[in-house]
Amino acid sequence: MISKLIDKIQKTGAPIVVGLDPKLSYIPGRILDRCFGEKGKNPEGAAEALWQFNKEIVDSVCDLVPAVKPQIAMYEELGIPGLIAFKKTVDYCREKGLIVIGDVKRGDIGSTSESYAVGHLGSVEIDGQKYSGFDEDFATVNPYLGSDGVKPFIDVCNREDKGIFVLVKTSNPSSGEFQDRLIDGRPLYEIVGEQVEKWGQMSMDGSYSNVGAVVGATYPEMGKVLRSVMPHAFILVPGYGAQGGKGKDLVHFFDKDGLGAIVNSSRGIIAAWKSASYSEFSDGRVGDAARAAVLDMKKDICDAINF
Amino acid sequence: MISKLIDKIQKTGAPIVVGLDPKLSYIPGRILDRCFGEKGKNPEGAAEALWQFNKEIVDSVCDLVPAVKPQIAMYEELGIPGLIAFKKTVDYCREKGLIVIGDVKRGDIGSTSESYAVGHLGSVEIDGQKYSGFDEDFATVNPYLGSDGVKPFIDVCNREDKGIFVLVKTSNPSSGEFQDRLIDGRPLYEIVGEQVEKWGQMSMDGSYSNVGAVVGATYPEMGKVLRSVMPHAFILVPGYGAQGGKGKDLVHFFDKDGLGAIVNSSRGIIAAWKSASYSEFSDGRVGDAARAAVLDMKKDICDAINF
Repeated sequence: MISKLIDKIQKTGAPIVVGLDPKLSYIPGRILDRCFGEKGKNPEGAAEALWQFNKEIVDSVCDLVPAVKPQIAMYEELGIPGLIAFKKTVDYCREKGLIVIGDVKRGDIGSTSESYAVGHLGSVEIDGQKYSGFDEDFATVNPYLGSDGVKPFIDVCNREDKGIFVLVKTSNPSSGEFQDRLIDGRPLYEIVGEQVEKWGQMSMDGSYSNVGAVVGATYPEMGKVLRSVMPHAFILVPGYGAQGGKGKDLVHFFDKDGLGAIVNSSRGIIAAWKSASYSEFSDGRVGDAARAAVLDMKKDICDAINF
Repeated sequence: MISKLIDKIQKTGAPIVVGLDPKLSYIPGRILDRCFGEKGKNPEGAAEALWQFNKEIVDSVCDLVPAVKPQIAMYEELGIPGLIAFKKTVDYCREKGLIVIGDVKRGDIGSTSESYAVGHLGSVEIDGQKYSGFDEDFATVNPYLGSDGVKPFIDVCNREDKGIFVLVKTSNPSSGEFQDRLIDGRPLYEIVGEQVEKWGQMSMDGSYSNVGAVVGATYPEMGKVLRSVMPHAFILVPGYGAQGGKGKDLVHFFDKDGLGAIVNSSRGIIAAWKSASYSEFSDGRVGDAARAAVLDMKKDICDAINF
């Protein structure tokens, strides 16, 4: 699967993923009114608004980017109707030819991780027929439980040509509380990074592995170290834009060919229509604003890495 | 919320939680046939079977135990129909007066953790009315992202009188890979445990906090240390029975009053009808076998801790 992602990055010239993390506050009144009118002022109506909002964005940016990253928490917040909107979003993005990274941050003991892996990346067989649960292309995975929590995901990746990104160094301010603590003189995130490289050997797909890593744009120096600790791990980089990261900070996340990393922006793209920088779209043209924001982000990053 | 759990433990005399982690292989043919007949041989039929299986177990044990712990992965594996069965299970258990610990192991950056916290423990407000997503009483939380990933859960706990159990030392064989690594001479799980104690101060509810900890039954020596590192954290103890833990190993997880911990068993109870120890129920009497297994587990633990 990572080779498919690399191929799409090369075709679009954009090592960019659009984070589909909608909140009701990002959605213009015309969409909210229509959806609450259709489904009621309730979680069903709110979930419909998330989905219709996503659709406008996806329709506007699907020719520009290789991938999207829906954050399942934003949907799970609304319970079952929200998760139905998540599934609709995943399916629609795949229909539009986008690679879908499910930002689910799952991870558990072995037999339980296997269920998560099957639900998000694989399929269950009932009476000889296969059924997929959510069917993303990649999922993000939490490493705290160690190898037996991660390997069931790798097994499913190998069986179904899917991929994962393991949390190594997250983009949030308190990520250092545990991740930066020194073990034999080296921070925990490096120890986890080394393990990601080892796990990666179990699922190589070209020069990179289907086992990638999450490293926040907000920690560029650590990105530099981790790039060399994990030479075969593609890096998913959250934290660009609204969280503070800029293109020039990200140079060392990439390899010499401008590959090896893909940068996510969520709010900066999907809520661009509300931002002062894109005030020409402030009448609720979410798709046009998202498109403009993607083009600006592409220029910022590609200029920095000469891609 | 932790005071409600303690009250229920005292009333039932059973510091026991039944893990509702059903797999199709645990479900007798009579339930599978009925559900596949009603809903089709597909994920809807399979999810109906999980739910009807759970209902038989809950009906048989609800007077004996204070709480249940559905593991959401087992439901998420089946996609949306599975999650509907999860929600039905949560609602039914609460109707029966059981405290529901959602074993969801969520955790993300701040704003995203807030969505998970709202979806599992809180409610969204739409047009002045509140709607709950899954509405468990407790949720399990992964600490890898640090304080800003955990605090949104604590805020919701305080607002809605709910609780969490933070993963400290998990029960699986490879949990030591990161959790046991030494930081300034002390294992990571102790550092996390110390932080759990600090987080706990933000949500005290009697002698214990609404912020508890997960410590595996399979590591009794570590349970002893962690009991003293986290004097205000109630400990949720997975790994009893099928994973290897026994009552006598668990003495030090408890305080001097026989409180301070609650022990989970999943397979050992819900699949007891398939085990050689309960062969008198092997004709598919899942509820009767579960009841017998709960009573045996209660005796094993209460004898060990003199509760």
